[in-house]
Amino acid sequence: MPSFTVYKGTQEGKIFKAETQRPDLTNDQVLVKVTASGICGTDEHYKCAGIALGHEGAGVVDQVGPNVRHLKKNDRVGWGYEHNSCGSCDQCLSGRETYCPEREMYGEANLDQGSFASHGVWKESFLFRLPDALTDAEAAPLMCGGATVFNALHTYGVKSTDRVGVLGVGGLGHLAIQYAAKMGCEVVVFSGSDNKKEEAHKLGASEFVSMKGKKELNIGRKLDALLVCSSVNPDWSLLLPIMAPNSTIFPLTVAFDNFAIPHLPFIQSGITIQGSIVAARAVHRKMLEFSAFHGIKPIIMEFPMSEQGIEEAMSTLKDGKMRYRGVLKPQ
Amino acid sequence: MPSFTVYKGTQEGKIFKAETQRPDLTNDQVLVKVTASGICGTDEHYKCAGIALGHEGAGVVDQVGPNVRHLKKNDRVGWGYEHNSCGSCDQCLSGRETYCPEREMYGEANLDQGSFASHGVWKESFLFRLPDALTDAEAAPLMCGGATVFNALHTYGVKSTDRVGVLGVGGLGHLAIQYAAKMGCEVVVFSGSDNKKEEAHKLGASEFVSMKGKKELNIGRKLDALLVCSSVNPDWSLLLPIMAPNSTIFPLTVAFDNFAIPHLPFIQSGITIQGSIVAARAVHRKMLEFSAFHGIKPIIMEFPMSEQGIEEAMSTLKDGKMRYRGVLKPQ
Repeated sequence: MPSFTVYKGTQEGKIFKAETQRPDLTNDQVLVKVTASGICGTDEHYKCAGIALGHEGAGVVDQVGPNVRHLKKNDRVGWGYEHNSCGSCDQCLSGRETYCPEREMYGEANLDQGSFASHGVWKESFLFRLPDALTDAEAAPLMCGGATVFNALHTYGVKSTDRVGVLGVGGLGHLAIQYAAKMGCEVVVFSGSDNKKEEAHKLGASEFVSMKGKKELNIGRKLDALLVCSSVNPDWSLLLPIMAPNSTIFPLTVAFDNFAIPHLPFIQSGITIQGSIVAARAVHRKMLEFSAFHGIKPIIMEFPMSEQGIEEAMSTLKDGKMRYRGVLKPQ
Repeated sequence: MPSFTVYKGTQEGKIFKAETQRPDLTNDQVLVKVTASGICGTDEHYKCAGIALGHEGAGVVDQVGPNVRHLKKNDRVGWGYEHNSCGSCDQCLSGRETYCPEREMYGEANLDQGSFASHGVWKESFLFRLPDALTDAEAAPLMCGGATVFNALHTYGVKSTDRVGVLGVGGLGHLAIQYAAKMGCEVVVFSGSDNKKEEAHKLGASEFVSMKGKKELNIGRKLDALLVCSSVNPDWSLLLPIMAPNSTIFPLTVAFDNFAIPHLPFIQSGITIQGSIVAARAVHRKMLEFSAFHGIKPIIMEFPMSEQGIEEAMSTLKDGKMRYRGVLKPQ
């Protein structure tokens, strides 16, 4: 039986190459040759889990199963976090496949597949055509990072007249600034220091606030929405006073501990705390179209798709030195 | 200058009688003679603050200011938590007066007024006519408790097809069960023990779950909304697994500590945590009409409006023995 290469992490977090058996393509399965993969903070979380890593894939169709209807060899496609969803339960049918309750169960069958790989076999209906305006390396980080911030802005009623805060200029934040700005919003960027000020303005920030040493933030009109894109839990005593009544907080960064926020100010101001992660497929498609139309692209650092390249990329990410999304490319 | 009686708490939390100077009525001010006041958990929080207590008032109009247009002597009225709002800022005009940013500032002028009192002077536009179907004592607890649970169910998209959880059968919970049931929802009630099972069913619960000793909750179809009406932070490890994807949690109980919830399950399920407190005036009116139409009434325990009566009522509440809302009545 043929096989392909995937990359996993040992219990100690060392990256190693493994082989995944390539099944005969049945039904609507598609064999994709990976041409680029983004690196997400979540990969760090799963580095020691022994599973194939990567969920920001871009590639070309190599072979199609008997019931594939739209894709053909050499089509450029991407796939993201929702690739493990069942696609047929109530939840998936209501457009919320990212939250598919079958996901985990179904996913177990796919722990030997990821986008840190030479190939992958995925269902046609979970692959996204890539727009010409985006290279594979540019498209890959949109599959999770882009979809996550776009979904928050698109799905929960953020309006173009809103004043949107983006906390943290990193893999998610540098995309959030672009989307919110292109949606017509005022974008207020919050960062630890002034280091990324110039870049934030280039990306579309209308204001930049360095939080270092601040006892209070004075930003004028309060925020209608805040996207928390930082890797650490923010200081709510600084941020809650600048949230408008009835505003929305999106805690987008995935963490394993508790989300905690002062109870009284949050309920008194009628604030919504919106859980949101990645995007439904319909929203994912809109995200790609919107990105292509507006020229929204991640700023990327490329690394070779190899044990050493992945180690280096993940260290760069862990050390807070990624500017702003790492992409692995096969040599 | 004439005065009226209010009740406050000392720093040690002892209730005492005080006199508030009664201003000459100007503009749209209305002098209301208090006939009943509900007792809310928030009064316990402010017991040592030295302010006039009570924000669930019912009474009759005693005298009207020169620009009062709709109310006249002897009209039955109620007032709630929003009585301190400015009524004219952007926020108030958008129907969110409960969250009026001027509220605190404006409120300072009114720290000598509350519904634990013989009288109060309020602006006409912040008084609600009481429906005939409700006695003053029945109406008073709706001014904060009723408005709080009704607002959560009414304002944030809960639908009659939803399965609604009510956690805690107390002052808020026993009203939430009635509103949700009359809105057509399936109502699943969660309580510490079986003690309140029969009453919960009488109030409209379709299911009752005693949480005592439970390691997991098995309720069949998951909850679309959960109203947290308990006085302690719930055990999220039990509750999050029974929340439907994209469901909404309303942490209604006012607390001074952090609201904390496991980060990952909440964002993965796309859950909304909705801060909500009391109601805008337009919603407050709907609440009263809906209560009258459906015969929704609090179950009350009456206490005399006196130092001793208030002490006794607040002890009953603190000891968890109120069934289910205390009401003070002048002797």
